Amino acid sequence: MSGPHTASVVGGSGFTGGELLRLLSGHPNFEVVQATSRGYANKTVGSVHPNLRGRDLRFSSPADLESVDVLFACTPHGVTMERIDAFREAADTVVDLSADFRLDSEAEYDEWYDGHDRPELLEEAEYALPELNRENLPGAALIASGGCNATAAILGLKPLFEADLLAGEERIVVDVKVGSSEGGAGGGEASSHPERSGVVRPYAPTGHRHEAEIEAFLGTGVSFTAHAVDMTRGASATCHVYPEAPVSTADLWTAFRDSYAEEPFVRIVAGGSGVYRYPEPKAVAGSNYAEVGFEVDPKNGRVVVFSAIDNMMKGSAGQAVHAANVALGFEETAGLGFEGLHPVGSP
Amino acid sequence: MSGPHTASVVGGSGFTGGELLRLLSGHPNFEVVQATSRGYANKTVGSVHPNLRGRDLRFSSPADLESVDVLFACTPHGVTMERIDAFREAADTVVDLSADFRLDSEAEYDEWYDGHDRPELLEEAEYALPELNRENLPGAALIASGGCNATAAILGLKPLFEADLLAGEERIVVDVKVGSSEGGAGGGEASSHPERSGVVRPYAPTGHRHEAEIEAFLGTGVSFTAHAVDMTRGASATCHVYPEAPVSTADLWTAFRDSYAEEPFVRIVAGGSGVYRYPEPKAVAGSNYAEVGFEVDPKNGRVVVFSAIDNMMKGSAGQAVHAANVALGFEETAGLGFEGLHPVGSP
Amino acid sequence: MSGPHTASVVGGSGFTGGELLRLLSGHPNFEVVQATSRGYANKTVGSVHPNLRGRDLRFSSPADLESVDVLFACTPHGVTMERIDAFREAADTVVDLSADFRLDSEAEYDEWYDGHDRPELLEEAEYALPELNRENLPGAALIASGGCNATAAILGLKPLFEADLLAGEERIVVDVKVGSSEGGAGGGEASSHPERSGVVRPYAPTGHRHEAEIEAFLGTGVSFTAHAVDMTRGASATCHVYPEAPVSTADLWTAFRDSYAEEPFVRIVAGGSGVYRYPEPKAVAGSNYAEVGFEVDPKNGRVVVFSAIDNMMKGSAGQAVHAANVALGFEETAGLGFEGLHPVGSP
Amino acid sequence: MSGPHTASVVGGSGFTGGELLRLLSGHPNFEVVQATSRGYANKTVGSVHPNLRGRDLRFSSPADLESVDVLFACTPHGVTMERIDAFREAADTVVDLSADFRLDSEAEYDEWYDGHDRPELLEEAEYALPELNRENLPGAALIASGGCNATAAILGLKPLFEADLLAGEERIVVDVKVGSSEGGAGGGEASSHPERSGVVRPYAPTGHRHEAEIEAFLGTGVSFTAHAVDMTRGASATCHVYPEAPVSTADLWTAFRDSYAEEPFVRIVAGGSGVYRYPEPKAVAGSNYAEVGFEVDPKNGRVVVFSAIDNMMKGSAGQAVHAANVALGFEETAGLGFEGLHPVGSP
Repeated sequence: MSGPHTASVVGGSGFTGGELLRLLSGHPNFEVVQATSRGYANKTVGSVHPNLRGRDLRFSSPADLESVDVLFACTPHGVTMERIDAFREAADTVVDLSADFRLDSEAEYDEWYDGHDRPELLEEAEYALPELNRENLPGAALIASGGCNATAAILGLKPLFEADLLAGEERIVVDVKVGSSEGGAGGGEASSHPERSGVVRPYAPTGHRHEAEIEAFLGTGVSFTAHAVDMTRGASATCHVYPEAPVSTADLWTAFRDSYAEEPFVRIVAGGSGVYRYPEPKAVAGSNYAEVGFEVDPKNGRVVVFSAIDNMMKGSAGQAVHAANVALGFEETAGLGFEGLHPVGSP
Repeated sequence: MSGPHTASVVGGSGFTGGELLRLLSGHPNFEVVQATSRGYANKTVGSVHPNLRGRDLRFSSPADLESVDVLFACTPHGVTMERIDAFREAADTVVDLSADFRLDSEAEYDEWYDGHDRPELLEEAEYALPELNRENLPGAALIASGGCNATAAILGLKPLFEADLLAGEERIVVDVKVGSSEGGAGGGEASSHPERSGVVRPYAPTGHRHEAEIEAFLGTGVSFTAHAVDMTRGASATCHVYPEAPVSTADLWTAFRDSYAEEPFVRIVAGGSGVYRYPEPKAVAGSNYAEVGFEVDPKNGRVVVFSAIDNMMKGSAGQAVHAANVALGFEETAGLGFEGLHPVGSP
Repeated sequence: MSGPHTASVVGGSGFTGGELLRLLSGHPNFEVVQATSRGYANKTVGSVHPNLRGRDLRFSSPADLESVDVLFACTPHGVTMERIDAFREAADTVVDLSADFRLDSEAEYDEWYDGHDRPELLEEAEYALPELNRENLPGAALIASGGCNATAAILGLKPLFEADLLAGEERIVVDVKVGSSEGGAGGGEASSHPERSGVVRPYAPTGHRHEAEIEAFLGTGVSFTAHAVDMTRGASATCHVYPEAPVSTADLWTAFRDSYAEEPFVRIVAGGSGVYRYPEPKAVAGSNYAEVGFEVDPKNGRVVVFSAIDNMMKGSAGQAVHAANVALGFEETAGLGFEGLHPVGSP
Repeated sequence: MSGPHTASVVGGSGFTGGELLRLLSGHPNFEVVQATSRGYANKTVGSVHPNLRGRDLRFSSPADLESVDVLFACTPHGVTMERIDAFREAADTVVDLSADFRLDSEAEYDEWYDGHDRPELLEEAEYALPELNRENLPGAALIASGGCNATAAILGLKPLFEADLLAGEERIVVDVKVGSSEGGAGGGEASSHPERSGVVRPYAPTGHRHEAEIEAFLGTGVSFTAHAVDMTRGASATCHVYPEAPVSTADLWTAFRDSYAEEPFVRIVAGGSGVYRYPEPKAVAGSNYAEVGFEVDPKNGRVVVFSAIDNMMKGSAGQAVHAANVALGFEETAGLGFEGLHPVGSP
């Protein structure tokens, strides 16, 4: 390889777009040549993302896409399927951070979304949650980076399935707590500071679209409920499951180690001493790490699984870079070495 | 009745003690004549509780109890059972805010706590969650005010049981989110601001003692898990249940209205427009109101029930006053009229 | 007097409108007969203000004003001067919470605002900061309730002027920190939770309009700078002054006691033990109290004065009720007895 | 140079110690060989600093110091002066993050601290705020890294002095807002979450020790007041100055550019569009950047200067690494490239 790959970020003024701009410029294998924004064309990226104020890069119009090696699409759901031909013409590899190509079939888009404009591409698109399916990614030309809440839930539950600790007809409760950045930039009354600070607010009591994503890749349905809580970054999933046969703490350690011992971005945290004994979004804020952990509830025949990620990183921009690293044959952890901060107030 | 009842608050420098001092001085039927504190004797109540800085009352030593009509014990678990004879000598009515007299049998205290010093009093003591058992309270001389997390869970689930929507062997998941005041005053590393702010922290993954309280008064076990989140006041319970027969939204409205239509402190909030569509601690902060609500998940055969209270009010001090009002024949809502604030940052 | 006075709240869906609705319904001398809202006509007040969900009151259109004794105008700046004839036709007493009638002369409105539509009314209008000028209020028919930041600054500095501790040509720095409710309801990007939480943001570095209000009623100019910080309610003013002659702590105690010993809503907090040694918005959140305090800096010949209020209460709705109480001859503290909460997270 | 320099962190379990461990392991020229802790000896660094959970490093006792090239002392004030001989025996270069060697003379330590044990070393010690005095650092063997609040104030005011915009006898007000990490790890009642969240709390109204540091290195006294606000990381200084001659915005731009155009870690932010128009701690959280900006107040003859840093980075650990980079001849920005996060809740 001679020199870094060129990359563009379409939808660069949103939160995940800004996160990608940050990650890619610290990445040894990428050079950002374009960031687009409809609303902020000709403004510096630092005028929107204050952490990037030192950068000498201005947003350009999404109408004029430069030719690059990799195009990251950080556009709202529905835009990538609409503009996919232009994206693919501009880049050999398209990594989409929206939900537009995550599910396998048009039927699922009919059920969970407003249908799909380009169903013929669904089979080609590769879902990317590297811990789940990294073997599918090398050489992929259209990558659908996994969603934040789905990633948290899948990473927590995967070891139980891989170790056959859960049988088929389980009722799995996934109770999720998320930060305000999941709502995206721009505002609105419900996300205004006076109304949004300090909340424990059920915002998706039932029927969240990530149920489809979890079901598709975990092979089982889950009962998903999401609450908004007072943080900006972070998604925390608490999964309550009832195995048919009793499960011990040792069984769980074995299962989680079997699944994740070699994973560069997954940490198992289950008990121990100190303040941080279980997975917490605060412990992974700003990083691409996921924390997973568990506790056995013998009285109720229950296993409680905890999973925590930064929704902006492992839940979107970091995962997209991770997927691109695998797809293009880079070091998996390239550009993703930041460990996060301690202490950090509200991530 | 000639004049207000005299009252004392034992353990008046803690959070619930301060809340009681606030409530009782605005109460038409009570006059506070004593507040005790081991650590702050001779200091003004306002030196500890800044909202009470205008008050002309000083803490006295708990060794010298004055004779009063009602003694409210806001002491840590274990103290009331140790000092109960002194408390009963000082007052005709003792309202205990700790867990010391909430459960029915010594066996339960052996299982969930460190045993019990005075098991012969357990039968006499009346548990007090007025929406559950107000008929037991008039004339009671030893009242055990219900616990915060148990109150939230019981209020959410009670309509389902009263309407026979749940059969016996259900697996009920109660996923709770609580504020930092549940840890009490004083501090410690885990509750220090840098470590505690912005958290979603599993602090009682399994085996929380309130499971016993819920089971005792709801008649069924629950799978309870509590998380600390970034608020000071508030407890929010999300209960995930799977009725045997399909349940409709209309069934739930009927059930909840049947249970709570006449309750002065329970509001049913389930859908609607605006920012606050389900129960939220933020909507009841500072008040004695509980909000309960629900959503049907037909895909998964699930009902999700939400319940929100201020743990310092409906979860402790407010509930104690409510119980005393019923016990002594006062207006149920006396002293508890405050509606709460909007907006409030982090309650 | 036969029965309570009737009152209406115009602009009842905003934050100060909601606060007034809360206060007036707990007020022994008022009965709310109308709350208007352009955007929420026919909706319940509880659909906007979740703390008022138990209320049986719906917003009506501001086009149809009912005849009442007192009309409280909680409309944005500019609206009252436009609709003042309709307001005065509907009510004997109009209490305006905006800045429309706070300043004395048209020239000041030309300088600080966009001019004034009805300058002939400026002389009749009475500014209301009761600690400053309660003697002007009895019988007033058009009352301009003092602004939040001005109230905080004036209450802190007033004792210094009354005790002649400051001479004429002082440079007074007023460094203010305010909560997000000052921006009003509705949202916008800068006040969205991800962008607004955790900030120390200079939002009015110089030239804040409240400088005019402070100057008008204190008789001296001040150098005012405001920062947004992470709370919802609250305004805190730190005033840095350099008296010409040395001032002792005892001098300051004397000055502050002379000014405020008889004031029902002002507490002097200056040193002492415990966590809360100086004025803090957190200590007065939800209440109509103001806290004022000070510290002498002998090394620099400086006096630092601290002042803290709840901008929604002493800074707007509470002050308006206080002013109405004085104007109509009610008990000054009527309806304003709430002491605030301890602890409260972020007020 | 053959291979990286070895480094140890004494006091590695505190907040600044953890930050240094994070920075040094990502630094191309350093290898951490020891981290000491009295309280956590033999525990992993990740058991205290959750962001470092992936690290294979355990705390050792501070009694057994390994020989290294550079020793960073993150101990409380007073410890370095007590243990300085052992530190210097263990390392060629000692970088102290406490105040023990920041001031020039024993007399100053007598005035502001509890005297000094080793005054003969004060002359040799080099204060390190690289933007102020990087020319003194190459080859220094005892480095006193500048304090957080002093750094914020000095960086804001330095351009005014360098451009001769301020004459000698000015009264300079420095009104500072800081996060909870300045209080260090461990807790205590005032820093407990219920009491500390949401505050605007005067914690150093007058007489803060950083006045001495500012005066020593700026050559003028300042009137310093610090407030605790609701963030974990961050220090924001608002400086109010009254130049003798009128100063224009263009004058200030020239002055600030003259001082900082070549500085790798200082950004000038003064007006412009968007949400972040002035320096904010939130915009630099986690990074070593300082933001400085200003506004002219012609009405009052005032200049307001704003300065924002992350107290854990530019205010302590980052500054120490920056100083070590200069002292040892490394690239100045080595190990300090992280740009910070957007959005971040409460930094």
